[in-house]
Amino acid sequence: MTVDLDATVSPSLTRDLLKWISQEYHDINGSSFQTLQSPPTPAEFAQIVHISRPVVIKGFQIPALKRWTDDYLRSKLQDQPISVAITPNGRADAIAADPGGKLFFVEPFTEEITIVKLLEALNTAEQESDDTSASYLQSQNGNIYSSRSFESPKDDPSEFGALREDVPSNIPWVTEALGRNPDAVNIWIGNSKGVTSIHSDPYENIYTVIRGRKHFTLLPPTEGWCLRERLYPHAVYGRTDNSKDLIVVPSLDSPQVRWSSVINPDLPGSLPPEAHPLHITLEAGDTLYLPVGWWHYVRQSGPTTIALNWWYDAEVRGMNWVLLNLLRGTGNVPSGNDET
Amino acid sequence: MTVDLDATVSPSLTRDLLKWISQEYHDINGSSFQTLQSPPTPAEFAQIVHISRPVVIKGFQIPALKRWTDDYLRSKLQDQPISVAITPNGRADAIAADPGGKLFFVEPFTEEITIVKLLEALNTAEQESDDTSASYLQSQNGNIYSSRSFESPKDDPSEFGALREDVPSNIPWVTEALGRNPDAVNIWIGNSKGVTSIHSDPYENIYTVIRGRKHFTLLPPTEGWCLRERLYPHAVYGRTDNSKDLIVVPSLDSPQVRWSSVINPDLPGSLPPEAHPLHITLEAGDTLYLPVGWWHYVRQSGPTTIALNWWYDAEVRGMNWVLLNLLRGTGNVPSGNDET
Repeated sequence: MTVDLDATVSPSLTRDLLKWISQEYHDINGSSFQTLQSPPTPAEFAQIVHISRPVVIKGFQIPALKRWTDDYLRSKLQDQPISVAITPNGRADAIAADPGGKLFFVEPFTEEITIVKLLEALNTAEQESDDTSASYLQSQNGNIYSSRSFESPKDDPSEFGALREDVPSNIPWVTEALGRNPDAVNIWIGNSKGVTSIHSDPYENIYTVIRGRKHFTLLPPTEGWCLRERLYPHAVYGRTDNSKDLIVVPSLDSPQVRWSSVINPDLPGSLPPEAHPLHITLEAGDTLYLPVGWWHYVRQSGPTTIALNWWYDAEVRGMNWVLLNLLRGTGNVPSGNDET
Repeated sequence: MTVDLDATVSPSLTRDLLKWISQEYHDINGSSFQTLQSPPTPAEFAQIVHISRPVVIKGFQIPALKRWTDDYLRSKLQDQPISVAITPNGRADAIAADPGGKLFFVEPFTEEITIVKLLEALNTAEQESDDTSASYLQSQNGNIYSSRSFESPKDDPSEFGALREDVPSNIPWVTEALGRNPDAVNIWIGNSKGVTSIHSDPYENIYTVIRGRKHFTLLPPTEGWCLRERLYPHAVYGRTDNSKDLIVVPSLDSPQVRWSSVINPDLPGSLPPEAHPLHITLEAGDTLYLPVGWWHYVRQSGPTTIALNWWYDAEVRGMNWVLLNLLRGTGNVPSGNDET
């Protein structure tokens, strides 16, 4: 559905309306989050989804939590090639400048390496502040299970097939609450260099930390207007010749990408005073319910931080989708390069 | 919470925005409703609440359905006084004019009569088109169970105490889905003269027909702007001297009441073309989930139509309440009498 509020309401009035909604939302909901000491029942989780605020859930036990040492991962995955994102700065799918200062939305260079190489790269980079590049396994394409797993399990090959016995393909209390199977289940392996720039997803997200720590900075969908979304030309990181250096390579024929201009929402002054960021740190064994449309910026600590996430399609019926469209505001998004 | 969008966005732009939202909502959701052949599980009902669209539920069995003949009601209630709404036209809590043509929001005259008298009055009026007055048992104050029942059952006296064994005080699949007990459980007894004017409630509503038929005309919260809410002075019906005639008696010192100016949404031309009313008829044994904020106009057929409803407090956390406030639009509601 095309959102063009401007056909109806002018951009400056849309902005005023979005400010009004975000203020009302904050007056009612405040800036706190709930922590559950054990997983909810399906009906309890359905209530949580209806409220659509982040909840930390303790005690969601899965085999990966106890098993996934470096040795175990090496012995299970052996020589299996793994697609890893390589960037000069740890920021994949983020805004970056080319040498001339022009801004792009840049996707990572992807390299297929073994788990041995990946663990080595993460450890070395963490200890030696290797500034040449950062590795982050963040392929997020259903790299453990994709939706095909539920229709025809044999047609869902995975680089991590050997780890499937440690990861449930769906979470019973979520699947029953939402009445559907996940759309994708992903593994994430990185270190403190890997950062995920602030964005929102059209999914209900269950995010579990297996090793290390993840630090989330969250904004409700109502505060999206604080993030200055702009249009950026698309690019990917590439290597020239035999050099290991990565450069920004503009994509020909790719449409522009709408993305937040806020590079790091944790830096003082990055957000207007009307924003109320929520800071949540997940330790190993903690699970976050990250509701559809919530903006998230994610950092991690520890030499090898491993996480899993289950994405479930969000409910489109009812008011929720209309509302998320309204909160994304006007269709007239200016170019990010005009501002600089 | 005071809603004053006008402080931010002018009334005419608010109207344009509300039109935009209602169009988007209709594009996604259409005008259909779901019918379930048996009651949902708690998790299924929680999904239904999240979508917040009306659902007809078959097969919700309660003892009242088999037991409540006229004879049974008479033998159980005997001489118990029952508070019944008396109006000249069957329209309690509705807009009506005084002899000078000035419009008021008028509450009914309340009379305490026995079940014998009530059943007699309903039958006579239905058969003989008695135009002097209409009776409708619609006290809707938790007349079977109020919220006190769940804290201290002995402190919740009811005119219908003798019928409690036929009516569950809560519905397990609703109570578990919402995580709370009902706020009120009501019995409604009327005939085809009793009409409920279009309005919306801040409750999740479960409505079961025991005898006769109920005809609902529903509009989603997004189409509230089609109903021309206006401010009306408050009045009650009263009797002068020994006459049986009811007259409109203006209330002194009562605040004005915000109410729809649409007297009968089923009349052609009552609603703008942007409205998409949903028509649902419930037979005896049918149950309607009527979501919070949905506008409803209710007629009934049959000499003695009996219904029960369970009101559960709506979820205030999250976006729902903010959204319902937004959809009620500007705080500057004009007077209903200025328009005539």
